[in-house]
Amino acid sequence: MGRADRGHKDSGLGLDIDYYHSSSPGVAAEEAEKIGLHLLKVLKNAKNEVSGENIAKEFGISRTAVWKQVQKLRKAGYDIEARPSRGYRLVSTPDQLTKEELEVSLPPEFFGHVFFCEKVSSTNDLAKQMAGSGKFDPVGLVVAEEQTGGRGRFRRVWTSPRGGIWMSLVVRPKISAGSASRVALLAAVAVAEAIISSTSLPARIKWPNDILVNEKKVCGILTEMAAEPGLVEYLVVGIGLNSNFEADRVEAHRTPVTTIQGELGRPIDRPKMISQIVVGLLNGLASLEKKEDQALIDRWRELSVTIGQDIQVQLAGRSIYGRAVDIDDDGSLMVELTSGERRTFTAGEVSFGDN
Amino acid sequence: MGRADRGHKDSGLGLDIDYYHSSSPGVAAEEAEKIGLHLLKVLKNAKNEVSGENIAKEFGISRTAVWKQVQKLRKAGYDIEARPSRGYRLVSTPDQLTKEELEVSLPPEFFGHVFFCEKVSSTNDLAKQMAGSGKFDPVGLVVAEEQTGGRGRFRRVWTSPRGGIWMSLVVRPKISAGSASRVALLAAVAVAEAIISSTSLPARIKWPNDILVNEKKVCGILTEMAAEPGLVEYLVVGIGLNSNFEADRVEAHRTPVTTIQGELGRPIDRPKMISQIVVGLLNGLASLEKKEDQALIDRWRELSVTIGQDIQVQLAGRSIYGRAVDIDDDGSLMVELTSGERRTFTAGEVSFGDN
Repeated sequence: MGRADRGHKDSGLGLDIDYYHSSSPGVAAEEAEKIGLHLLKVLKNAKNEVSGENIAKEFGISRTAVWKQVQKLRKAGYDIEARPSRGYRLVSTPDQLTKEELEVSLPPEFFGHVFFCEKVSSTNDLAKQMAGSGKFDPVGLVVAEEQTGGRGRFRRVWTSPRGGIWMSLVVRPKISAGSASRVALLAAVAVAEAIISSTSLPARIKWPNDILVNEKKVCGILTEMAAEPGLVEYLVVGIGLNSNFEADRVEAHRTPVTTIQGELGRPIDRPKMISQIVVGLLNGLASLEKKEDQALIDRWRELSVTIGQDIQVQLAGRSIYGRAVDIDDDGSLMVELTSGERRTFTAGEVSFGDN
Repeated sequence: MGRADRGHKDSGLGLDIDYYHSSSPGVAAEEAEKIGLHLLKVLKNAKNEVSGENIAKEFGISRTAVWKQVQKLRKAGYDIEARPSRGYRLVSTPDQLTKEELEVSLPPEFFGHVFFCEKVSSTNDLAKQMAGSGKFDPVGLVVAEEQTGGRGRFRRVWTSPRGGIWMSLVVRPKISAGSASRVALLAAVAVAEAIISSTSLPARIKWPNDILVNEKKVCGILTEMAAEPGLVEYLVVGIGLNSNFEADRVEAHRTPVTTIQGELGRPIDRPKMISQIVVGLLNGLASLEKKEDQALIDRWRELSVTIGQDIQVQLAGRSIYGRAVDIDDDGSLMVELTSGERRTFTAGEVSFGDN
């Protein structure tokens, strides 16, 4: 897995980053690292034991060399069972994010395009600066174990303790700035679907793209972009998912807060969740570029807890009461006031009843 | 006018800037500077001579102190006529941009929000970085005498020699990212109107926002933004206007190039032109925020040389031939192909006939 020297460094981008730096490996060490990563990938995907002999054959190395890699993974916290004549089996994965773990879990285009850091002020800010300086093309991902200056929409503080999923995906879809609001919707669907499929928790969407479980907020999404009006240069989809910690670690705003661990009673496999979200979002974007994302927008409507509710919308200090009737194709919320007049909101803060 | 120490300095933003640095003036010097600026403003706005006595009274200073300020302005290149018993009259202004000259010409909200530099890689890049770090709120303006890395749409090189108008306006309108394309249209109208009213040259607009005079390109506009999909954080409207130099100084792309000086036979008052453009654009934005910009969009149509023409649109390596029939409300170009099919373009490069 490569020796990791933990350190603290200025990113050169004016951001504060604690990071793991893999010491430059020689060719042999690099090869061993690749085998280690591949072995981990095989163990993760296997339903049964994996034969050490087959692995050895595939890489043209000895069974002892394979065993050495297994030892390295065990040292890194992976519980790997070894049964004579049957092979190796991954029993559990440490609940710790690393660049390696992430790269193994993500699609191949992310290899070399993942920036993992222990601590950063804001993954979105770092992702924007990296994307703005031409990096992360065509994609990139910033993941941090902890954020010291995380924020949500309207520059609100977003508490980001260890154990959560604090990530920012950089994408460069060929869409106009006006279509970017659909990306925010697709992101919400991707997160909700990832939660539902991996935990069976009833994830729902609160307009525009908060994710609730049992009426409590579990995830916020902050989509930012750089664009010429006719063409998006890059989008940063920031996702803050309260996963493997208890809800009392974070402060609630208007909506009560929960965590996946709090609802599920156990932590989740974070790299797997990250991967599911990223893959779902990239698939959604591909549909959007082909203008075939209508089914996803309909899915957004199904998962929405906002449509049909009596709500209050706050925007720029004003409050408007009414019933949320639908979203339009750009993701704007359509609200029917008691007077019967309809208003459309592209941004704003929605609350239900007394919340 | 304050002593100006010319120097070279890293902006701290990773950009290369040659700049004039006003040495920190004491309170008395600051007061004198204010009087100098005010005097210049009065002289610029006056139709006839300005009485030195009245100025002296207004500021509670001696007529000799007024005369000292006049001398300072003369030293800076202003031709000021003094007639005994009648007063001072501004005969001509030096064709040189300075922070002071710009601040005198611009509306009051720009005082302290103008960044002038002799040379910069790109005024848009500098403006974006300043806006991104929270400066230039609610407005800001970067003007350079020369750009070393100017660029237009699609990252094309934009030659920016001395004598031109290379400026980037930062604004923070309360609009959605989808409405930002209208800002690009408003900017084109503001520039065209400023050229028409101050020079009577027949300025016209080529979609989306190039300005032509006699079918030759005189100005390009590059609008960039940072936004959440529902809400623009800031817009940078970069304007490159070939004004006080000859057209052989710059390279043409597909469209032939001209300059205001080349068409008019004389240079223009650049600070005045900058001010006219900025004021026109801010008025347009105010209309857009109030959703009262339809008349401006109609004016865009009147000034357009694109609508009604047989054109070729290039976008992402593809070429489409057809007739430009209109723009839609978002500024997208509607093109009718020979098959009768209609296509809408939010971005792309338009050329006419063989150009």
